[in-house]
Amino acid sequence: MTGGSARIADSAMYAHLWGTPAVRAVFAEQGRLQGWLDVLAALARAQAAHGTVPDPAAERIGALRAADLDLERVAAETRATGHSTLGLIRVLADVLPPEVHRQVYVGATVQDLTDTWTSTALRTVLDEVGRDLRRVEELLLDLAVEHRDTLQAGRTHGQPGAPITFGWKAATWADEVRRHLDRLREGRPRWLTGQLGGGVGTLAAQGPDALLVRARFCAELGLADPGISWLTARDRVAEVGAVLAMVTGTLARIGNDVYELQRPEIGELREPTAPGAVGSITMPHKRNPERSEHLDTLARLVRANAGVLMEGMVGAHERDGRSWKAEWVALPEVCLLSATAAAMAVALLEDLEVDAGAMRANLEALVSSEQALTLLTGRLGKHEAQAALQASLAAGQRFSDLLTADEAAQLQPDPGQAGAMVDLVVARLRTARTAEDDA
Amino acid sequence: MTGGSARIADSAMYAHLWGTPAVRAVFAEQGRLQGWLDVLAALARAQAAHGTVPDPAAERIGALRAADLDLERVAAETRATGHSTLGLIRVLADVLPPEVHRQVYVGATVQDLTDTWTSTALRTVLDEVGRDLRRVEELLLDLAVEHRDTLQAGRTHGQPGAPITFGWKAATWADEVRRHLDRLREGRPRWLTGQLGGGVGTLAAQGPDALLVRARFCAELGLADPGISWLTARDRVAEVGAVLAMVTGTLARIGNDVYELQRPEIGELREPTAPGAVGSITMPHKRNPERSEHLDTLARLVRANAGVLMEGMVGAHERDGRSWKAEWVALPEVCLLSATAAAMAVALLEDLEVDAGAMRANLEALVSSEQALTLLTGRLGKHEAQAALQASLAAGQRFSDLLTADEAAQLQPDPGQAGAMVDLVVARLRTARTAEDDA
Amino acid sequence: MTGGSARIADSAMYAHLWGTPAVRAVFAEQGRLQGWLDVLAALARAQAAHGTVPDPAAERIGALRAADLDLERVAAETRATGHSTLGLIRVLADVLPPEVHRQVYVGATVQDLTDTWTSTALRTVLDEVGRDLRRVEELLLDLAVEHRDTLQAGRTHGQPGAPITFGWKAATWADEVRRHLDRLREGRPRWLTGQLGGGVGTLAAQGPDALLVRARFCAELGLADPGISWLTARDRVAEVGAVLAMVTGTLARIGNDVYELQRPEIGELREPTAPGAVGSITMPHKRNPERSEHLDTLARLVRANAGVLMEGMVGAHERDGRSWKAEWVALPEVCLLSATAAAMAVALLEDLEVDAGAMRANLEALVSSEQALTLLTGRLGKHEAQAALQASLAAGQRFSDLLTADEAAQLQPDPGQAGAMVDLVVARLRTARTAEDDA
Amino acid sequence: MTGGSARIADSAMYAHLWGTPAVRAVFAEQGRLQGWLDVLAALARAQAAHGTVPDPAAERIGALRAADLDLERVAAETRATGHSTLGLIRVLADVLPPEVHRQVYVGATVQDLTDTWTSTALRTVLDEVGRDLRRVEELLLDLAVEHRDTLQAGRTHGQPGAPITFGWKAATWADEVRRHLDRLREGRPRWLTGQLGGGVGTLAAQGPDALLVRARFCAELGLADPGISWLTARDRVAEVGAVLAMVTGTLARIGNDVYELQRPEIGELREPTAPGAVGSITMPHKRNPERSEHLDTLARLVRANAGVLMEGMVGAHERDGRSWKAEWVALPEVCLLSATAAAMAVALLEDLEVDAGAMRANLEALVSSEQALTLLTGRLGKHEAQAALQASLAAGQRFSDLLTADEAAQLQPDPGQAGAMVDLVVARLRTARTAEDDA
Repeated sequence: MTGGSARIADSAMYAHLWGTPAVRAVFAEQGRLQGWLDVLAALARAQAAHGTVPDPAAERIGALRAADLDLERVAAETRATGHSTLGLIRVLADVLPPEVHRQVYVGATVQDLTDTWTSTALRTVLDEVGRDLRRVEELLLDLAVEHRDTLQAGRTHGQPGAPITFGWKAATWADEVRRHLDRLREGRPRWLTGQLGGGVGTLAAQGPDALLVRARFCAELGLADPGISWLTARDRVAEVGAVLAMVTGTLARIGNDVYELQRPEIGELREPTAPGAVGSITMPHKRNPERSEHLDTLARLVRANAGVLMEGMVGAHERDGRSWKAEWVALPEVCLLSATAAAMAVALLEDLEVDAGAMRANLEALVSSEQALTLLTGRLGKHEAQAALQASLAAGQRFSDLLTADEAAQLQPDPGQAGAMVDLVVARLRTARTAEDDA
Repeated sequence: MTGGSARIADSAMYAHLWGTPAVRAVFAEQGRLQGWLDVLAALARAQAAHGTVPDPAAERIGALRAADLDLERVAAETRATGHSTLGLIRVLADVLPPEVHRQVYVGATVQDLTDTWTSTALRTVLDEVGRDLRRVEELLLDLAVEHRDTLQAGRTHGQPGAPITFGWKAATWADEVRRHLDRLREGRPRWLTGQLGGGVGTLAAQGPDALLVRARFCAELGLADPGISWLTARDRVAEVGAVLAMVTGTLARIGNDVYELQRPEIGELREPTAPGAVGSITMPHKRNPERSEHLDTLARLVRANAGVLMEGMVGAHERDGRSWKAEWVALPEVCLLSATAAAMAVALLEDLEVDAGAMRANLEALVSSEQALTLLTGRLGKHEAQAALQASLAAGQRFSDLLTADEAAQLQPDPGQAGAMVDLVVARLRTARTAEDDA
Repeated sequence: MTGGSARIADSAMYAHLWGTPAVRAVFAEQGRLQGWLDVLAALARAQAAHGTVPDPAAERIGALRAADLDLERVAAETRATGHSTLGLIRVLADVLPPEVHRQVYVGATVQDLTDTWTSTALRTVLDEVGRDLRRVEELLLDLAVEHRDTLQAGRTHGQPGAPITFGWKAATWADEVRRHLDRLREGRPRWLTGQLGGGVGTLAAQGPDALLVRARFCAELGLADPGISWLTARDRVAEVGAVLAMVTGTLARIGNDVYELQRPEIGELREPTAPGAVGSITMPHKRNPERSEHLDTLARLVRANAGVLMEGMVGAHERDGRSWKAEWVALPEVCLLSATAAAMAVALLEDLEVDAGAMRANLEALVSSEQALTLLTGRLGKHEAQAALQASLAAGQRFSDLLTADEAAQLQPDPGQAGAMVDLVVARLRTARTAEDDA
Repeated sequence: MTGGSARIADSAMYAHLWGTPAVRAVFAEQGRLQGWLDVLAALARAQAAHGTVPDPAAERIGALRAADLDLERVAAETRATGHSTLGLIRVLADVLPPEVHRQVYVGATVQDLTDTWTSTALRTVLDEVGRDLRRVEELLLDLAVEHRDTLQAGRTHGQPGAPITFGWKAATWADEVRRHLDRLREGRPRWLTGQLGGGVGTLAAQGPDALLVRARFCAELGLADPGISWLTARDRVAEVGAVLAMVTGTLARIGNDVYELQRPEIGELREPTAPGAVGSITMPHKRNPERSEHLDTLARLVRANAGVLMEGMVGAHERDGRSWKAEWVALPEVCLLSATAAAMAVALLEDLEVDAGAMRANLEALVSSEQALTLLTGRLGKHEAQAALQASLAAGQRFSDLLTADEAAQLQPDPGQAGAMVDLVVARLRTARTAEDDA
């Protein structure tokens, strides 16, 4: 690795943009090795409980620490054998007495080790993403409540239309985030599942108590027992990728709305600026929506990697290295980037600047055409009202010229049921949150 | 449309490969128009219930039939206005009295109409896919039970390894299908949701009872009330795409296993052949795995279109035609192709030919190396056993030469816990099915 | 096909948004059948030239017209045999004498027919896309020249920065379009290539003159001779998909810039509005950027389908229906949508409204910070100048307060070398165009 | 970076599977920093040549070495400022006298630096991929020549059909590889292009000789002058991604054919095994097609990342960080993985084991049905011959029963024009290679 990581996402300069400390620690080489050792330890304990491994050996295996291994030797043996885990197993002979070493990794295969470890790593990822997503939800609910009645132009096709409130916009974001929390809750038991099966997945080398050994092995690690091996049944992996792609899609949607509404020509929202941050050297007046922008960047990369996982569902027979090795890269990538996005969304929203004055000013610069249409419709009927408005516009006139004095007086920005919908969403989500807090 | 559809998937010759009758009917132009009219009728009824539309008008609107409309005029007006629904609304004036016509589509917008209709269309799709997927599960459980103990070579990296049973393989397929049935059940209430909000989604033109009108509107159509508008909150759409992509991924996995195991050099499985079917004109002896192959084709296209839906989550503001119009194409495509895949999987599995003799013969042609390793490990320890086997292989010897007579006698193909895992899966899935049947 | 096409892209109401007449005609069922008959005719003529088919038979085959065939019977036979072309071949027996019928389609296979036809269809597509793209280039060059010096704010990260000119922006678009024209020119001979090989591609059933028959066959159709069969060498198909995805990507980029600059808060560009067009029923004042938006929609779908073609490169052995049948859907889709995008870009640009006044006003509302920085740098050095500007901004001061009177006088919007770069691009592209016109 | 890289592709244990030394060196942090310094040096030299930077300053800047910089400080400043290059610029003040430091990076922007550096990095990548691809072509031509007449079953839809020769298969691979070499040659001048424009791309801060400075700057680095800035004109980047995705697609196709033909049930090809390599611990008899498999894995990941680049073409205005930062990750990934694939393909093919005996045996186990059909067609006509064959098959008879004795004698495996096509391809490709060698 002379010269540092070849992946910019792991570089000294930029790693912070493409990973969070907790998720990096899980997927980093030391974390992965320790995770593998923990899986080996759980296996030995499970086997010890069923008498196929002596207790002291299991205990010794359980005391293995990645820091005690010579990583360079592990790597060299891995390259020499061309085998994914044999390098590690060989080097364990350096630190274990022979009678213990022969009890390591009995009846298991590479995929048992790596799939099970991945499930434990996923737990950290899901915990972190879930926590940050709940925080995002909380911040959005606060915005929804605070700006329940803050008038803003709704925009469709990039064009300001009828009024909304900013709180209502925040509530639609929160509502979407809540559905992701639901998905994460529903999917979690499917995803956090162990794998133990040996060469082709039949547990043939685990002795007569094999099913019990597997159950114990999974329980030791806090994972669900799979019932049956899932070596090429990769729907779990594809699903977690799809859900995290959706999560980052939502965060990118929020980011993009901030990005657009931060245009100085609009000026309704502004990202917080970190002290010391410099937007542009050459154009120092600029205030770039760095985080908003990055949320979109992250979502693009997560989608692409989640697509790899989806494609990988079509594996052959009892193991297919073509798709499975692609997972080795794509799934951690999905996790690292999704956790980054969730953390960045929290930072974006914690100090998001809302310019209610600009919102109001932009809105007033528009004609509230939908309301005018409603007023005219009451008098002329729907289709005649439309025709009149269109004729008026074509003639360069203002809507208000078509209205009676009474009607004109009613021409106040009307956000319809925006506030009531905010109340609905806030009540429902807060109830869900309270139930979670109590759980 | 002179000259027929420009999409081969809708051609007279090949449409049967890319759609099922029921799903085609839903998305076909007549079906879509009728679906839209049903949505307009539900809206009028909901408004009538709250006094904003006269009952007789609602009744008349409820009697609209797509077959009574001049489709060519609708199309011409659509092109002339460049507006997605105005063509239809204008042509409705031909068949409705003016006082009724002005009560049509009040306070709603294109997206209310099309999103709500899509949810009703999705119901048919989910019903069909769910039904066929349950049938797939049933057929797989039958195979799992029948072939619980039918020995077969497990294959990893394309290479035969240790024994499995074919029933065990079928059980891993069934287990994956069951998880999809779980996902379809969990997602359904999220997906079958109405949309009503008017121009920017605030219900501003629905009067003081707007929330009740929306609730009634959704209930009329058997859809869930969304709580808040989801015009650019497209997670529902992205999720249904992802789940159907996963479903077709699993069916493609099954198809690919059949495709490979139908190679005459392997000959363990064979697709049923329809009477009259011709595989190859130029090579008439060939028996092509047409359905298996097509399952993979369909999964590729579903994945690609589901990717469009995922990308579409990042929409701007309160409506974004860029992503939304892409949904107009991609979501029906996902639905049509997924339903086709589910139906084709049923046809594939209903008469799948399982050649237990070939499975056994292929297996015996292999050395049961994993079991040999286990035997040796018991005597020599794990790492010594591996070394001995590798040395033996390198020297061109047979495993059995390393074994004692007693050990050699034990060298029978041992599928480990395959049968027990089949029993676990069958029990669990049959319980789930019974619960569903009772529901 | 009761009820109309199940694909909205082929519906009476919306087909115009997802295809052009010429490309639709090529891929429509009649067009495809006629194309296939033309390929069969070319084959018979080539065989006649080498004596393996009697001349009169070749002549009779050359007179076949799709309109004379009973399409419903072709379709019924296709479904009954499950074979892609046997239905057609059987129905040809209705219109050909037996001695001619037996001379049809000799020694060829489905893929010979369909791949070769696809190449002829691609020619129409490339002609149409190339023509429209040249027109786009021309319109962009006109804009570049006309607005060579029309000042506009450059925008990075969504934030107005230093000045550009609108002509310079148009020139960057034109420059990118020209690279696509280069790619289309370079790729064309690779793509417009015939296929003839029989069952596995070896020409085994074409007699001793097989290579000459193939050469003649390709020449008859104006296609290149492939040298060797390319049944699973699908790089040609993947490449044409990638290039058209790039083409639509550029057009979407132009569309998106228009979309954003048409926001009324910015108001620098506006799409032409077709007479009679209605943007929004409920918000009649709105002027939606329909075409700009649709360019992005089309690019999304083209990308997804081009991805299917890219994935399809990894086919197995001598034919792989899994990837090849996916091409049947994805390649025409890429073509139909790309041609639509090119035509729509022409329409967008032909009457694009450029509001030079708004451009200027937006620009003046900004501080020309880059120039201020340059001025200060000359006096203070680069890093001190930056520090001073940042301190000034932090203190809420204006740039100009930091400048001397002389410096302030220089603070005019300076688009740098924008005009000179326009001249470079215009000269280079016009030269290329003239060379093409002469060719 | 405590704990090692969080990307497995950069881990000590597995990095060799996801990068080559040369390409890793280019993209590694030290390589990138040095590359950036080289770009800054070229800029200073170009400016010195036009008098805007003093010669000694340019010389001093040209002597900057990444190894002399405190990377941790650069990283800390990068994080503190949130700016992509300001950290580096600040730290340069540690090693440069103030009067030189102020001459660094004048009038340029982050994207000038990074895009230009990327083009220089691409040169290394294209050199390496091109070299290895030429070696692949050479190896394939050798196989084509050696096995010009080695009979093998052609396989379509996974089913053995008529005969080919293995040399012919190798020639189709070589032919496809040659087209990639053509594409790489055509695209190279488009891709290896510099970028210099300052804040929005207008060269506003480069003085009156700006265009000459840019030309000199590009020439210093051996890159083409772009004519006009291409900050959001990312077709170059998308194209290089697409071409490398195609390259890896072809290599994956070769790998997949080896993977399938290495199945012991087929046994026609075998990967070379590295000495010391261990396929499976638990199933030691297995010989896994590790490289073949990995070629497919790499292609999947390259495709996904190339898709990110394609999507990134739709950037906004004069710079769009959303798409551009995604390039930062995706483009190096495409490069690293493509170079790995090319190197791995060389290793795979250098010692590929071809089992001509197994090929022949598999072929003879089949009936040469295509040839039988041809013989019968000569006697009965095409359609009657087909009917007779099908009836015969349906009755469980053999083809040969339908043939006369003379015909049966002719029933030898006939690979048609396979050998002649090999000759065509070999001649054409060798000519191209000679021309390249002379160039």
